[in-house]
Amino acid sequence: MRLANVLRGKTGTFGVVTDGGFIDLGPLLGHVCSDIIGLFEHNLIDEARELAKSSSAACRVDEIAFRTPNDRSDARIFALGWAYAEHQAETGKEPPKFPNMFIRTPSSLVAHGQAVIKPMVSDTFDYEGEIALVVGKGGRHIPIEEAEAHIGGYSILMDGSVREWQKHSITAGKNFDKSGAFGPWVVPTADVPEPARLALATRLNGEQMQQAPFGDMVWNPAHLVHYISTFCELRPGDVISTGTPGGVGHKRNPQRFMQAGDTIEVEVEGLGVLRNVVAQET
Amino acid sequence: MRLANVLRGKTGTFGVVTDGGFIDLGPLLGHVCSDIIGLFEHNLIDEARELAKSSSAACRVDEIAFRTPNDRSDARIFALGWAYAEHQAETGKEPPKFPNMFIRTPSSLVAHGQAVIKPMVSDTFDYEGEIALVVGKGGRHIPIEEAEAHIGGYSILMDGSVREWQKHSITAGKNFDKSGAFGPWVVPTADVPEPARLALATRLNGEQMQQAPFGDMVWNPAHLVHYISTFCELRPGDVISTGTPGGVGHKRNPQRFMQAGDTIEVEVEGLGVLRNVVAQET
Repeated sequence: MRLANVLRGKTGTFGVVTDGGFIDLGPLLGHVCSDIIGLFEHNLIDEARELAKSSSAACRVDEIAFRTPNDRSDARIFALGWAYAEHQAETGKEPPKFPNMFIRTPSSLVAHGQAVIKPMVSDTFDYEGEIALVVGKGGRHIPIEEAEAHIGGYSILMDGSVREWQKHSITAGKNFDKSGAFGPWVVPTADVPEPARLALATRLNGEQMQQAPFGDMVWNPAHLVHYISTFCELRPGDVISTGTPGGVGHKRNPQRFMQAGDTIEVEVEGLGVLRNVVAQET
Repeated sequence: MRLANVLRGKTGTFGVVTDGGFIDLGPLLGHVCSDIIGLFEHNLIDEARELAKSSSAACRVDEIAFRTPNDRSDARIFALGWAYAEHQAETGKEPPKFPNMFIRTPSSLVAHGQAVIKPMVSDTFDYEGEIALVVGKGGRHIPIEEAEAHIGGYSILMDGSVREWQKHSITAGKNFDKSGAFGPWVVPTADVPEPARLALATRLNGEQMQQAPFGDMVWNPAHLVHYISTFCELRPGDVISTGTPGGVGHKRNPQRFMQAGDTIEVEVEGLGVLRNVVAQET
């Protein structure tokens, strides 16, 4: 099941993306919640699945525009650096002993299908394809053996990075407005029986640049939930983007950065494809 | 003028703290805005000043409880590391060539008078007294010569730091729930004619631990506004905490950390005193 926040015309709604079209849950569950994060908050994932089976599509998928899976203004995006061995090797740094966290602000991310913006101050605008965990059930000090049950689902994040500014601080380099992308939807954990086998691939203008199974990520996803919950109370809708494999543009020879007009795609088999074009900031 | 978000009983309101008591602007301006950030958004600072002159106090100051100056769930707190020469020297690191930014989440901060929480996983809970800029007028790519006019006012932040976890990442060490404090109020820029002379002092149980004029901070405040606006559109209410001077606990000999029952105060002459007790996480 693919749960998405969308726009139909100018109206924000949420629902299920199927091969037969978009099933609008807004008219069915709008009295309880207003977005797919609300489905997790109110424990309505099974309900959404039943409704999707018994309802017909409200429109074609090409008639909707996607919003990010959590487009609330107070969305929290925890992200990881250096979490795949191959990427750790290419950066030439000592592998971190603990998850290396940073935060992206909501304004740094656009939805599937929207333009990501190459900043006017940068010629080193780089892609990083990542798998994102979306917290379904909140909590503090979540024991590691219970942590997997707090993951509500999986999504895709393109952790666009401004390399010159990342040298100032990771926060600056990762927080240019609209420099990353998140979506198109969330696949609930029940539909991802073997997360370690999720195959991630990043393509720039159709050419494959990154490729790795999620199992190559050095941290256990449950450990990440446990770890973050040690310092703060996790909430439904919190996003944990799990770092990128090798093959980023600034470590290639020759280097390869994103330019206006490029198409950047992050595909995760079993989840979907997050596709964005690059536009120049003007 | 001291603009504060407060609770009167269980009711959230906002107003002006004077020597004669608390002037409640909620009944006067609540049709336009719901907090002091709204005063900046709606350009009502002069109006607030006039109303404060012509109104009588609604209650004594000891009858209100403070909320943070921006307690909206989507508040953004940009913070700086290594921004005073003396603190740069004591950390033994190369001084940064650019502002070293990180982000604190709203849940990491409590208001004046509330308990800051010493995490159960830490014995290295440290204070950092800081001056915080509160953005009054938003914008992107704000030229440095115009940037000062975007600072709405000044406040105080206690950038509580969990040193063991800061070694994992600055984000983890600075984002323990309720590990820092922010307030008590915002003093508008018009009432701070010489920011460089603001004298900051941090006291632990009455003993002075840090002390510096704001002029010792190595970045021009206007430069910080300009710098951040280069990567994201600043909004009214965005907070820029400007780093701490020398004298932090983990660089002392012997080291000195905060313990349950301690009182931590950050005083800035002309702004006020941010005072919190330390409680143990249970």
